[in-house]
Amino acid sequence: MLLNIDKSSSTPAYKRIVEEIKNLINQGTLETGKPLPSSRSLAQKLGVNRSTVYQAYAELQAQGYLQSRPGSYNIVQKRRKEAAYNPKSRSLISWEKASSSEAKRLYETFLCYSPERPKSSKLSDQFISLAALDPDPRLYPLEDFRKCLNTVLLNSGTESLQYGTYKGYRPLCEHIAQRLRLHGISVSDEEILITNGAQQGIDLVARVLGGPNKKAVVESPTYANVIPLLDFNGFKILGVPMKQNGMDLGALEKILDRENVSFVYTIPNFQNPTGITTSHYHREKLLNICLEHRVPIVEDGFEEDMKYFGKVDLPIKSIDDNNIVIYLGTFSKALFPGLRIGWITADKELIQRIAAIKRFADLTSSNLAQIVMHYFCQQGFYDRHLKRLHRVFRRRMQVALKALEKYLPSTVSWTRPVGGYTLWVKMPRKLNEVDLHEQLLAHGVTVSPGGYYFPNQHSSEYFRLSIARLNEQEIEEGIKRLGKALHKLFKPSGPERRA
Amino acid sequence: MLLNIDKSSSTPAYKRIVEEIKNLINQGTLETGKPLPSSRSLAQKLGVNRSTVYQAYAELQAQGYLQSRPGSYNIVQKRRKEAAYNPKSRSLISWEKASSSEAKRLYETFLCYSPERPKSSKLSDQFISLAALDPDPRLYPLEDFRKCLNTVLLNSGTESLQYGTYKGYRPLCEHIAQRLRLHGISVSDEEILITNGAQQGIDLVARVLGGPNKKAVVESPTYANVIPLLDFNGFKILGVPMKQNGMDLGALEKILDRENVSFVYTIPNFQNPTGITTSHYHREKLLNICLEHRVPIVEDGFEEDMKYFGKVDLPIKSIDDNNIVIYLGTFSKALFPGLRIGWITADKELIQRIAAIKRFADLTSSNLAQIVMHYFCQQGFYDRHLKRLHRVFRRRMQVALKALEKYLPSTVSWTRPVGGYTLWVKMPRKLNEVDLHEQLLAHGVTVSPGGYYFPNQHSSEYFRLSIARLNEQEIEEGIKRLGKALHKLFKPSGPERRA
Repeated sequence: MLLNIDKSSSTPAYKRIVEEIKNLINQGTLETGKPLPSSRSLAQKLGVNRSTVYQAYAELQAQGYLQSRPGSYNIVQKRRKEAAYNPKSRSLISWEKASSSEAKRLYETFLCYSPERPKSSKLSDQFISLAALDPDPRLYPLEDFRKCLNTVLLNSGTESLQYGTYKGYRPLCEHIAQRLRLHGISVSDEEILITNGAQQGIDLVARVLGGPNKKAVVESPTYANVIPLLDFNGFKILGVPMKQNGMDLGALEKILDRENVSFVYTIPNFQNPTGITTSHYHREKLLNICLEHRVPIVEDGFEEDMKYFGKVDLPIKSIDDNNIVIYLGTFSKALFPGLRIGWITADKELIQRIAAIKRFADLTSSNLAQIVMHYFCQQGFYDRHLKRLHRVFRRRMQVALKALEKYLPSTVSWTRPVGGYTLWVKMPRKLNEVDLHEQLLAHGVTVSPGGYYFPNQHSSEYFRLSIARLNEQEIEEGIKRLGKALHKLFKPSGPERRA
Repeated sequence: MLLNIDKSSSTPAYKRIVEEIKNLINQGTLETGKPLPSSRSLAQKLGVNRSTVYQAYAELQAQGYLQSRPGSYNIVQKRRKEAAYNPKSRSLISWEKASSSEAKRLYETFLCYSPERPKSSKLSDQFISLAALDPDPRLYPLEDFRKCLNTVLLNSGTESLQYGTYKGYRPLCEHIAQRLRLHGISVSDEEILITNGAQQGIDLVARVLGGPNKKAVVESPTYANVIPLLDFNGFKILGVPMKQNGMDLGALEKILDRENVSFVYTIPNFQNPTGITTSHYHREKLLNICLEHRVPIVEDGFEEDMKYFGKVDLPIKSIDDNNIVIYLGTFSKALFPGLRIGWITADKELIQRIAAIKRFADLTSSNLAQIVMHYFCQQGFYDRHLKRLHRVFRRRMQVALKALEKYLPSTVSWTRPVGGYTLWVKMPRKLNEVDLHEQLLAHGVTVSPGGYYFPNQHSSEYFRLSIARLNEQEIEEGIKRLGKALHKLFKPSGPERRA
């Protein structure tokens, strides 16, 4: 065998060997069934390390060029042809026509939304995103997490890589039940189901309670991703305006008197997008109204752990003696979104019914992620991380509030959240999303336009600010740029003024 | 402060300190706002290590008994009351009535299925499961995986714990595209969407193509979990009998001539449950029939990588020049089910439409799991693991086939799979599931009763054997026991004979 390995090349030696041998096989110089030299002798001939040849042979096996029968590893084999990539013509099937009407609508919404989240790398000095709502990755307790992963893999690696159970890893459910008791919620682990983030929680609730001609009430504005998801699940969505203390209860009562509603979806703490925290009085009254009408409440507690400005009221679930509240929680907004771990807490029977859907929809959530999360919490790392987040975001929110006072035009107003990451800014008049976006981009800053957060409304006088991924300097600078842009947009007089 | 720590107790010292201090706070002896001694001085007083006291204080902070302001960590604080657990009365809402009719049916099916998978610990010497279909965890390449996880967390920990992109981690998609080329499938990474296992792939396909009064064709028998899932998604399910070479194409043609069908679901390799591999001729003909009728094929390639008995035909997707095949793959059946990583390969436009659903249903799959899986594959660990699995299961399947010949009554017959884990056994007559199960349990063995695998059929003359989790000795012993039980059940004559 003549191998011609160019030692001056910057390609790793083993790769050059792989390429040479592949060529010899493809040309037919090395025939099927013929043995290659032992790694030792080839290494000697080529003057390379034996492990280099070993690595090359392993790669050739992986690519299907060498047989791998025990005791005869280096025999050339007839290789399955690797398909070349040739882009095909369009499908013979019209996927548009094949899609359900719900899937069609969802796809149109999907295309309107920004196609992909901006990656952290794009958040350069030149560009500040006041839009992203996931916790600052620079605060991740990475080393603690890595240690936990190693311990889990060493102690229960086999278990953690198998299928889990449908309702979730029991010790994690027990731990969550225990944590919830600190928030006044009294549940057992049997009333908890682990989900792939709170988002899957909403989807599962919508799937169990959904169906054609069903109706759901949401706050208006509300979490943008919930609107298309409920629509996709067949719901007609009824919006109830958000007021200073929570949703307009008079409007809610009128709807519930008139309509048969499957559930009321609410975010009582640091609401997304407004940052409004529903008062205790409002929580009690909301619960009573829903009790009277026998309508379940879906309480999204996605930032329950982010109460960094003193006392925030306990969840509605904590005063729910009649088991009508379906509570959603998550580790995505205070720890790692990338693990995809959230949970649903509800009446045991409903949990069983939701587990049935989860069991057939994706079998189980990642067992490894659940076991590691449990161990991480149990070691106290989660609590320690929360304390740090609280300290950091208390300061960051204060910086944001001061900067808003300092830089924003006096015709603009905003909410003052008691925790979480978002603020809701009201401009002097409605502005279409593209105009706002362009003006802000020109100043090197982005926000999340308000139109997304209302059912059936595409322009608005609002936008959402999020400080989730920014440090104090970035917040100050971002809001300064925002202020400049808004001053330009809302000059007291000028040619660009519109009705 | 008087602390009374019982040093003879077996409880860890820090826990005893925690309990004592909690009691003092709860009794009011330690008042709100009062500082605790420094960890150094308390350690000296109690004669314990300082780190013990430190750990106790951290625990007390986590439980809400101590403040944690920077510089003053040890001040007693008024603690939020922890809710006691008191089981509530039943919900005021009837979840049965609130559920959609699809969710109700799914829940009834769920209750019929065995509630949870048996844990590996239950597979003791006394009891052999020929039912479980997930790869033997004793073969997991745990150490390789742990190394990869560490490398990923050290090199790109921050990225891996953030939200990923809707369609999945690009390098993993590219890697999968490359692997698929070895199976003759020519796709780009744009035609791939990562899912939480192949199960979510089926759900997403059903959700995009579903809707009331839609119809789907499945093989009869077919993968048990697909039947309730399609039903839940609104499909009427039409079964086409499995024959020796694949589904009965004559029967399929008649259905497609008569009915408007949304898709045909097929498992061409080592079909679950029968173990039958569809012949190449059959694959081509199936594709042509579906092309003629403009009906998409959903090809479940869940065990594509488990071709250990020589040449198996290429996937239908590999000869699909018109982009009508939706191909499902997974890492769950040859590597780790617990990571929940699978994928869909289909026409780019359909992938976009499915991504829209995934984006709103659970945002993204675990970024960490995807990045680690990519690195694991790239290092060659997956290929090395597959080679080992092939060697091991070639032998195991041979042992199973020999044992069946040796121990099973001559009135019983079975399929001879060319890969994968399952065999399909035909008994001389129909047997109800409970009778079969009881007789087998009495002999210390279980199988998976055939009724589950047929649409609308609950007793059958079949059962499924799986050797996925058993070694050669366990397979031999399990089949020996099975043989005894079957000999007893099907004695040539006897009182228990039934029509």
